Amino acid sequence: MSYAVIGDWGTSRLRLFRVEGGAIVARRDGPGIGVVGRAAEAAFADTIAPWLADGTPQSITLCGMVGARDGWVEAPYADCPADAADWRQAALRFDWRGAPLSIMAGLACTGADGIADVMRGEEAQIFGACLRDPALGRGRHLIVLPGTHNKWSLVEDGRVTAFRTVPTGELFALLRDHSTLGPKVAVADPAEEAAGFAEGLAKAGAAQLFRSLFAARAMRLRAGRSADWALGYLSGLLIGCEVAEMRATLGQEACVVLIGDGKLSARYAQALDAQGVDSRLLDGDACALAGLGYMGEMTA
Amino acid sequence: MSYAVIGDWGTSRLRLFRVEGGAIVARRDGPGIGVVGRAAEAAFADTIAPWLADGTPQSITLCGMVGARDGWVEAPYADCPADAADWRQAALRFDWRGAPLSIMAGLACTGADGIADVMRGEEAQIFGACLRDPALGRGRHLIVLPGTHNKWSLVEDGRVTAFRTVPTGELFALLRDHSTLGPKVAVADPAEEAAGFAEGLAKAGAAQLFRSLFAARAMRLRAGRSADWALGYLSGLLIGCEVAEMRATLGQEACVVLIGDGKLSARYAQALDAQGVDSRLLDGDACALAGLGYMGEMTA
Repeated sequence: MSYAVIGDWGTSRLRLFRVEGGAIVARRDGPGIGVVGRAAEAAFADTIAPWLADGTPQSITLCGMVGARDGWVEAPYADCPADAADWRQAALRFDWRGAPLSIMAGLACTGADGIADVMRGEEAQIFGACLRDPALGRGRHLIVLPGTHNKWSLVEDGRVTAFRTVPTGELFALLRDHSTLGPKVAVADPAEEAAGFAEGLAKAGAAQLFRSLFAARAMRLRAGRSADWALGYLSGLLIGCEVAEMRATLGQEACVVLIGDGKLSARYAQALDAQGVDSRLLDGDACALAGLGYMGEMTA
Repeated sequence: MSYAVIGDWGTSRLRLFRVEGGAIVARRDGPGIGVVGRAAEAAFADTIAPWLADGTPQSITLCGMVGARDGWVEAPYADCPADAADWRQAALRFDWRGAPLSIMAGLACTGADGIADVMRGEEAQIFGACLRDPALGRGRHLIVLPGTHNKWSLVEDGRVTAFRTVPTGELFALLRDHSTLGPKVAVADPAEEAAGFAEGLAKAGAAQLFRSLFAARAMRLRAGRSADWALGYLSGLLIGCEVAEMRATLGQEACVVLIGDGKLSARYAQALDAQGVDSRLLDGDACALAGLGYMGEMTA
């Protein structure tokens, strides 16, 4: 049976889905583009090889860092404001072993403050979310994709009009692993960590980061707090300050849409709730596949 | 001739001064307490040995991390509000090879927000500054000691009433050396770095950190900025955001007193000036020695 291949190739992993008769029938994982770099084509050929034995795919569509300057081939950016049609049109297309291969474009924007920004991969989830939920394709919505580099995006009538990358996850990892503030231990007592997270959220605000950071260390020294507490505190403080700042500067929507991993998104939901903001969570994989044209169930 | 020894023993170095007839006549440097830890006494004996050959000192007075839990002997903290007399009274005193040795206390405080904080060593500079400049000992002053862990202190009529440790220097080093935002290079073109610093200051504000951080990377990718620019930008952004936040929360004084290293303090002076605040710089060594009782010239 003829089949198509769609895939999300990010920095840390390649995920390929085989679509036949409108359904995902198989999935294969491979190395991230950050690992293989310019050897991307060989890694792709390795990962897809078992499927090629069944014949040439009708099409191959990839999104993510595969199209970055240090990826397989550099794909363009669509400039914001951009809707799904603008984005699809900007894809890089070439023939690969007889199959039409598309590397989807990234998105680029320049804020009112003159700061340039880019995304590659998250835009598939954003446009996919609008396809899966038509209400998201109308009106104005604040969509957040939590991760190492969070993407905060304003979507207005299906167009991404502005977005900002916020490296909170990277900042947390730096503080945890390399600083004198983080205890450099794995969490042993999740209840302690959760209490620290809640206290970090309570201290967070739009002008509260610098003055509250050192407490992760001083409260262990002076107020009997534990290492687990300190990890949670740093996480809550950073996420809470990020949320307060982004709401103060990007959008005051009463409900924020979260797309992505359930565990990290739940932390953002808690931070938003602490600041009186509702949120709803959409599954990141389902949104990415919808952005790549697959609207069926996640069956494989 | 009889002599006294005063010294500042911080995490990264030991500095001993020999005082005779009201003047500093010699100076010796040794390893930081962060290096020697519990072997502090042996390191101290090594460093002071050439002077001991001339006889036992009248007194030895040390401040800084020498009195930390992981230092030579743990000295107490004086609780804020504390004036110089409270602080001196809290020193730990013992006999060392026939000489009366004092390890000065640190300062501890708990903010109105319940956050505990500590300092060890900087308080000698703060009290010393008030001794050297009697005008600082009256009225209310905002004093900042820039460093890896900046100390922002409110001094009212010679009493330290509140202070907050702000680890901006550590945050900058993490971003420079360990993140995907910092270029991990030494500055090659100081003019580029200075231009980045100014642009970072211009982007800084009380709710501007998270949204402006990623520009250190994106502006290199998309707007032709250099690695030197990015280093300066990160420094200006962090310092500017810190200043805006601390002024919003700790004190709105029209003039801030800076104590410490000239180069880093000049960056803080520039950040304060960008926010319409005057500053004046006091020499850190002179203030520390004044805090330890030496009011003479810095002659050695």
